[in-house]
Amino acid sequence: MSFSPLINQLIEALRCLPGVGPKSAQRMAFYLLDREREGGRHLANTLLEAIEKVGHCEQCRNLSETPVCQLCASDSRDRSLLCIVETPADVHAIAQATEYKGLFFVLMGHLSPLDGIGPLDIGLDKLGERLDSGEISEVILATNATVEGEATAHYIAEMAARREGINVSRIAQGVPMGGELEYVNSSTLSRAFLERHRL
Amino acid sequence: MSFSPLINQLIEALRCLPGVGPKSAQRMAFYLLDREREGGRHLANTLLEAIEKVGHCEQCRNLSETPVCQLCASDSRDRSLLCIVETPADVHAIAQATEYKGLFFVLMGHLSPLDGIGPLDIGLDKLGERLDSGEISEVILATNATVEGEATAHYIAEMAARREGINVSRIAQGVPMGGELEYVNSSTLSRAFLERHRL
Repeated sequence: MSFSPLINQLIEALRCLPGVGPKSAQRMAFYLLDREREGGRHLANTLLEAIEKVGHCEQCRNLSETPVCQLCASDSRDRSLLCIVETPADVHAIAQATEYKGLFFVLMGHLSPLDGIGPLDIGLDKLGERLDSGEISEVILATNATVEGEATAHYIAEMAARREGINVSRIAQGVPMGGELEYVNSSTLSRAFLERHRL
Repeated sequence: MSFSPLINQLIEALRCLPGVGPKSAQRMAFYLLDREREGGRHLANTLLEAIEKVGHCEQCRNLSETPVCQLCASDSRDRSLLCIVETPADVHAIAQATEYKGLFFVLMGHLSPLDGIGPLDIGLDKLGERLDSGEISEVILATNATVEGEATAHYIAEMAARREGINVSRIAQGVPMGGELEYVNSSTLSRAFLERHRL
């Protein structure tokens, strides 16, 4: 390495960002020191503030700097609908793409017994209380269409089925819009066939 | 946007990094808050420290947290050779790839009259003094093989030619190693033909 120690440290530190390898870390470090000191300072301060202040919403477990997040605190949402997702990014994706007006519950992960992630780690105790409250009439399972996401959805579906008066649904799986059959993987295609519906 | 204000600010701030668009900024923000708070804090502090302490080497203009950088301060380098490059990353690339044992001079850019970047902005006054010192016997021009890099190299070659006893060389241009002729662009190929040498 022919950089100064501090620049090496900065390059190393930048590698904690997802998708940033040695080459991009180097490029970022030089860019920040060369041409974006103002932006770099702002980034560092914002990052420190966010890390200090952002915690989890008491109600939905989403990332939030207030005890209850904006969505849960809003009185324009339908509080009888609860959509279960794995990550904060999923909340954003669904809020942007759909007309969904209910609340969310963010697992911050999925069940994964092999990694030691059980029901308590993804807040299912809190979800249980929520289902017991009698407020919820429909649970929409929007976990990922992966093995773990499916298993988690299945587990939660059973939890909800044990309570009376709660409908449980799972978001549809099949061929993605605009997807050409030729390029869709075989498990998706087989699923789409299996779940075909009458027109 | 369905994120909290602070998370939005963090996503926005991350976009000052080169090559980071809205999607990756979002991914980085969630990753840092979710799983890498320690790394994020370390990154922020290192960035602040680097921005505060890293300036330019008095001798070669490279980024350095000491008044004179490690390379210029080293007494194991051949002080009669001076390699001119555009950026700190170029110093690193040459130091890693070659056996070059001389010193560097970092322009931190290239001549670009249209953008108002003239000789003083890339430190050519300082380079002139260096050439006048009588210490330098060879100047190796390793600016980029772009129009601006070529023009800058040409300008510096003339500067050096005005002093006596300084040899000037330009790094070779041609077909890159491992490059298949079919995929090499036409200006590179034409240059390689023009500069063919006897075997």
